[in-house]
Parts: sequence; C-alpha cells; structure tokens
Amino acid sequence: MRKEKLEELKGYLEELKTIRKKQVEVDSSKKFLQSAVYDFTLSNGRTIRREQLIKGTNNGSAVIVMPVLKNGEILTIIEPRVFTELGVGVGFPAGYVEKGEESSAAALRELREETGYVPEEIIELASFYQDEGCSSAFNRIYLGLNCRKMYDQDLDESEIVSYMTFTYDELLELVNLGYIKGCNSLLALEKAKTYIKK
Amino acid sequence: MRKEKLEELKGYLEELKTIRKKQVEVDSSKKFLQSAVYDFTLSNGRTIRREQLIKGTNNGSAVIVMPVLKNGEILTIIEPRVFTELGVGVGFPAGYVEKGEESSAAALRELREETGYVPEEIIELASFYQDEGCSSAFNRIYLGLNCRKMYDQDLDESEIVSYMTFTYDELLELVNLGYIKGCNSLLALEKAKTYIKK
Repeated sequence: MRKEKLEELKGYLEELKTIRKKQVEVDSSKKFLQSAVYDFTLSNGRTIRREQLIKGTNNGSAVIVMPVLKNGEILTIIEPRVFTELGVGVGFPAGYVEKGEESSAAALRELREETGYVPEEIIELASFYQDEGCSSAFNRIYLGLNCRKMYDQDLDESEIVSYMTFTYDELLELVNLGYIKGCNSLLALEKAKTYIKK
Repeated sequence: MRKEKLEELKGYLEELKTIRKKQVEVDSSKKFLQSAVYDFTLSNGRTIRREQLIKGTNNGSAVIVMPVLKNGEILTIIEPRVFTELGVGVGFPAGYVEKGEESSAAALRELREETGYVPEEIIELASFYQDEGCSSAFNRIYLGLNCRKMYDQDLDESEIVSYMTFTYDELLELVNLGYIKGCNSLLALEKAKTYIKK
C-alpha cells in the first residue's frame, strides 16, 4: 500500500466518524423501511407466514459500480456507515434504482452523482437478491471501464461521499484492514478479478 | 449436470412454489422487521439522518455454511423464497445467530437443524455487513469439511427445507439456470473456490 494513500484515506475516515447519535421519533408511515406480513400457501399444501422488508416506494433494488480508470486504478468511495462498528466504510459507488429506471442507467447515474466520473463501457458482473429470505430487492454489480472525471460531484442533501483511487491489490489490503466490509463490495471484488490488469 | 439430479431438484422446486398469497394484518409492534431513526453528528460537523433496519431482538446477524461431503459433493438446501420471482431458491444452510451465541456454533446448529449433517471441521471464509447502509447485521460464511449425516432434520414449525448434493460445477450451472440467486450464496461459491477439489 502506498503510504500517502493510506494517510489520505485515514483523513477522510476521521472526518466522517460519528461523534453523536440521537434517536428521532418519526411518524412510522413516513419511514423508508417498512414491512408487510403475508401468508403463502405452497403447492405442497402447507401455509407459511413471511414478512417482507419494503424499502421506499420502489422495492429497494440497488446497483453497484466498480469504476476502473484508464491507468487501471479503481475508484472507491468513502462514506459514513453509521450502523457499522467503525462508523465509516470504503466501497464502490452504489444506490437504489429509481422507479422505471433501467439498472444500467442507474449505475451510470450513481457513478456520476457520487464521483463525477463517466465510463466508456459498463459490463454486468453479477445479479442477485440482497436478502433473499425477506426482500424482493434485486441488485446488479457493474464494472465501469476507462472511467474519466467529467463532472462535479452532485450529491443529495443527506449524502456525504469522498472518493479516492486504489490499485486492485491495495483494495484487497483494505479488505484485510477492515475498511471494506460490505457484502456487495466483496462480491464486486471477486467478480471483477478476471477483468483487472495486474 | 446429471439429468436425475436436475429432475429431483425440479420436483422439490415444484412442491415449494407459492399457489396463494394473502396479506395479514399484524400488530406492528410484533413484527420481526422493525426500524428506528437516528440523527448522527459526524466529526466534520455535519448531521445526517439514517434509518436502521432491526431484525428481531438480536441484530439480524446471520451465518451461512457451505457443507462439503467426504466425496467432494456440496450439500445444498431448497427453500420457499416467497419474495423472489421464482418463489423458491437453492442455497446453503443458513440462519440468524441467537443472542449470546458464537457464530461458529450458530453455523453448526443451523447445518444440523436444516440437514442433520455434521462437519469434521469448519473454516471461516468471509465476514461482512449484509446491508451496510441501514443495518448492523454482520454475517459470516463458513466452509464445513467432511460432513456426514448424523441426525434427522429438526426444523422450526415455519421452516420447509429440502436438501440435495451437487458437485461444485453443477452449482455453477444452477447459478446460470437462475436457481441460486442469493448474495450470500454467490459470495460463498466465490470464496470456497480454492478449497474445492476439482
């Protein structure tokens, strides 16, 4: 790992740490995370009760993009991850697919909004249910090739995102250091392996 | 893929399909899936609001075990997956860690309950946050080696689990056929690659 990269990363992580946490009462109908209960009768005659997690008005399907630059380095984002032990995390640009939006369009939009980068080409690496037992959320991981910085960051009011580039091997080090800990990020790293120039 | 294996699998999938779905009203305080809203103040001075998904009384952390038999075949389970497109799915024994329980003990317990198999050894393959942005659920994937059938299945009332063995390459075919679609299962397959005898 290049020493100056690790220093820069630690700076961002420090800035995004939680120093105070306060529970807020919100009208429960206004929550983003909702659930619904159903009884399902199966073709073998049995009935089972299952609870469904509902995220927002869409079904919570998300896209993840691993953006590779022309020099082979990979663009990562650093974000507050307030429910994790560290409180911050390193990962890849990602977000929810909007109603009526194509997944690949959502991937390009999230990459652009969070970093201002645009790829020449994107490749789908994997698709899967995020939490098969209780949700319909269906995610897709993309690889973005030959990404270039073309715009300013364009974040929602509640988003705080820093970004940095690392080599693939440095990202594996960040996994070992405990900075990359999300399921989708780990799967992206595995699936991208064969595409990354060493 | 062995033809008789695929036929057997299709039989289980057929049995576990949903034929009727009915929404049930449940006192919301009794739901398994709950959420809570917090304001977090970060060390850079900004305040962000985030919603946390809470699963049951524990934090929803889960374990997944990929059980390998002495002959190299891998034990898989077939379950209703009522919120997915197919309504059923193929994966590996898995479940929530109970309060105060060690993850590795939970893995052995879930494997035994769902299949009656016991491994000679288990190895941790990966650990990660299931849904980093909105949950503290921290999962672990294990590989179970030299598993043997030693007990009867011991399922909860609401669980319906069939099990079958496949070779690693057959499992990759099941991914391509769309029968294995869970995030944890895909990551388990990637992480187990180097351990599997070809």
